[in-house]
Amino acid sequence: MTPTNAELIARRNKVLGPAYRLFYDEPLHIVRGEDVWLFDADGRKYLDTYNNVPHVGHSHPDVVAAVTAQIAKVNIHTRYLHETILDYAERLTATFEPALDTVHFGCSGTEANEMALRLARTHTGNKGVIVTECAYHGHSQSIYEISTRDVPVSALPDYVVTIPAPDTLRGRYRGANATDQYVRHVEEAVATLTARGHGVAALIIDTIQSSGGTVIAPPGFYAKAAAVVRAAGGLFIADEVQAGFARIGTKFWVYQDHDVVPDFVTMGKPMGNGMPLAACVTQRAYVETFAKANKYFNTFAGIPVTTAAGLAMLEVIERDGLQANALAVGQYMTGKLQALAERHAVIGDIRGSGFFIGLDLVTDRATMAPATALTARLVNGMKERGVLSGAIGPAMNILKIRPPMTFTRAHADLMLGVINETLTAVS
Amino acid sequence: MTPTNAELIARRNKVLGPAYRLFYDEPLHIVRGEDVWLFDADGRKYLDTYNNVPHVGHSHPDVVAAVTAQIAKVNIHTRYLHETILDYAERLTATFEPALDTVHFGCSGTEANEMALRLARTHTGNKGVIVTECAYHGHSQSIYEISTRDVPVSALPDYVVTIPAPDTLRGRYRGANATDQYVRHVEEAVATLTARGHGVAALIIDTIQSSGGTVIAPPGFYAKAAAVVRAAGGLFIADEVQAGFARIGTKFWVYQDHDVVPDFVTMGKPMGNGMPLAACVTQRAYVETFAKANKYFNTFAGIPVTTAAGLAMLEVIERDGLQANALAVGQYMTGKLQALAERHAVIGDIRGSGFFIGLDLVTDRATMAPATALTARLVNGMKERGVLSGAIGPAMNILKIRPPMTFTRAHADLMLGVINETLTAVS
Repeated sequence: MTPTNAELIARRNKVLGPAYRLFYDEPLHIVRGEDVWLFDADGRKYLDTYNNVPHVGHSHPDVVAAVTAQIAKVNIHTRYLHETILDYAERLTATFEPALDTVHFGCSGTEANEMALRLARTHTGNKGVIVTECAYHGHSQSIYEISTRDVPVSALPDYVVTIPAPDTLRGRYRGANATDQYVRHVEEAVATLTARGHGVAALIIDTIQSSGGTVIAPPGFYAKAAAVVRAAGGLFIADEVQAGFARIGTKFWVYQDHDVVPDFVTMGKPMGNGMPLAACVTQRAYVETFAKANKYFNTFAGIPVTTAAGLAMLEVIERDGLQANALAVGQYMTGKLQALAERHAVIGDIRGSGFFIGLDLVTDRATMAPATALTARLVNGMKERGVLSGAIGPAMNILKIRPPMTFTRAHADLMLGVINETLTAVS
Repeated sequence: MTPTNAELIARRNKVLGPAYRLFYDEPLHIVRGEDVWLFDADGRKYLDTYNNVPHVGHSHPDVVAAVTAQIAKVNIHTRYLHETILDYAERLTATFEPALDTVHFGCSGTEANEMALRLARTHTGNKGVIVTECAYHGHSQSIYEISTRDVPVSALPDYVVTIPAPDTLRGRYRGANATDQYVRHVEEAVATLTARGHGVAALIIDTIQSSGGTVIAPPGFYAKAAAVVRAAGGLFIADEVQAGFARIGTKFWVYQDHDVVPDFVTMGKPMGNGMPLAACVTQRAYVETFAKANKYFNTFAGIPVTTAAGLAMLEVIERDGLQANALAVGQYMTGKLQALAERHAVIGDIRGSGFFIGLDLVTDRATMAPATALTARLVNGMKERGVLSGAIGPAMNILKIRPPMTFTRAHADLMLGVINETLTAVS
């Protein structure tokens, strides 16, 4: 017999405790997934428009087949020779510029960022980190302490300095000089860390600042910021845990739209299509410095079962042309959302690219004041109508539109109809 | 066509870099695993006597079936309701004392220790950590910095203080007063951390100090050490990442042989029988303090696919009586190893319990001087004869005997014959 939500919630509270949270006013009890659909225990189906982990769709048959075959065969650690990790790592590095030639595997985006930061600190000999405001990079101690979404500025260690997210919509700078004005904050952060005696180990940035509110950096910002940091002896970490793997449609990695080659690119969520797989892709010199000074081993990182999932996922993206699909369907959605904005004054902005779109909801277009409460009603109302999304941003007023890469125009139409209907109902 | 080892090693060096290491003078190219056996690319089979991740055997059919069924169904994160995580967490906490009632999942032993340390620091308000010498607890920044196997004492942060491992064989104290003499070091460490203004957040100890050389603490040590730390406001983390899940045969968790209930028990390696699954099991109060002060989410932790593997593994241990098997076959092996010691003067000590046995190899029984070079020859010679093991300990002179829980007397006889033959050949 299917337990009720109340029963499951009581069991969760008892055995998992209060740090575990649930989505939606009335949480979902999910029992099955297939492509862009999730099914609850009552057999009701939901269009998934925002989970960015099942990258080529829930339970994709190729990923299922790869995992099923591999786990039946063997699943050993990386101190034995095994071909899958090599096939995958070579295929992965082929999506990068030649300088980014070395892969360090992990099990989570947090572990990927841990690795990048440890490599950066070891190579530079510096401790200081520059991070954007309202950023989230992970849950381990040394990554949580740079996660400014959750840690107030007053509680940051003195080797962590924030810069404003390069937001040209709500941020302090707009217009033609915004890039240089934001870069000036990087220069100031470098000066602060230098004055405090820490030096600069790294600038770490989500290449689309998701927690920051789907912030798209202005042209030239990453390249100029990286140059400032490198001139001070620091390195540039592009966190693509959320945005990578062709989601934006135009490029495979977001930074590739910004005329810069990072020192580290970190990735996770979509990488194994749901299996715990993550990586830090970097340049050989940093790994060489690190290997001289440290021993490193990660039991479950890069194992056959998860890298088989990663390889299958990459193959599906390439074989099925899903990067082009993200671009085309993303453009289609953006156009339709713009049309919707003519009917709903609460839509203040539509931004992003491919399948990384933020629908910015406001109480007043002139002031762009965030419509936080309405966004929560929209998310819950869409869910009641069978479409799953979520809210993000410092004011939680941005609707996440980040569907699996197999999302079609028909799926988009269904989602757009529900957004229209729900906005009408909750506005 | 099967690539040569040289080709695979060249590919590894190119794409993974120098921080990735391989076991054995001539590394193994593993392509298949079944129960206690691993198979290389040439079809040669090896008896696995030391990999403690495939806990109920490589590719155990029940674990394979559970993973295969679950990945085909759905694999979503923990912000939806799902039964498997609850079934598993309830079954897991049933192996602990009632006070240890709350589970925090992770993807690696490192993440489990990260969580324990973050909870301890948040709850106590202290930063100081007491750790044994030559310990290894993980690879993230804040766990690596307490991993005294790899970080020299001079490079430890001043909020980390070491105590000697409670080794009554080679350590500084033996005999009847050893427990109290070792506890005195805990008292000193508390005093040092207090004097430095850090206070004590936690004492963290591998309940069998594996890296430290399969050190078995003397009776009463953990209980007395925990009492000293708690009196100073700190908490006790029992790291059972290597030793847990009934491996020792006598109890399900090692600390249960020591008349103490820890504040945190961390686990990983064997937990998912090869899938990336780990946890920190703790007491409700610490999680409540943490949840008030922090947001926490871990994308891949506790997901259906890995918890299904964990659940299947637990069921196999219980259904097949594998704890009793570990105890019985472990006693059988210990007896046979003692007989072997009469023929090989290099065997200096045999210690441990169940399937966590260390064979301590010495150049001189009187001085117990470690036979480091011989142990390396033994490990490689056993491998050439079809039996896989490894060396551990500060001097790398201890042969690890930590087979899957399905290891039988027949497997033990095969291993013992090869140890005997190889010791004769390499001594």
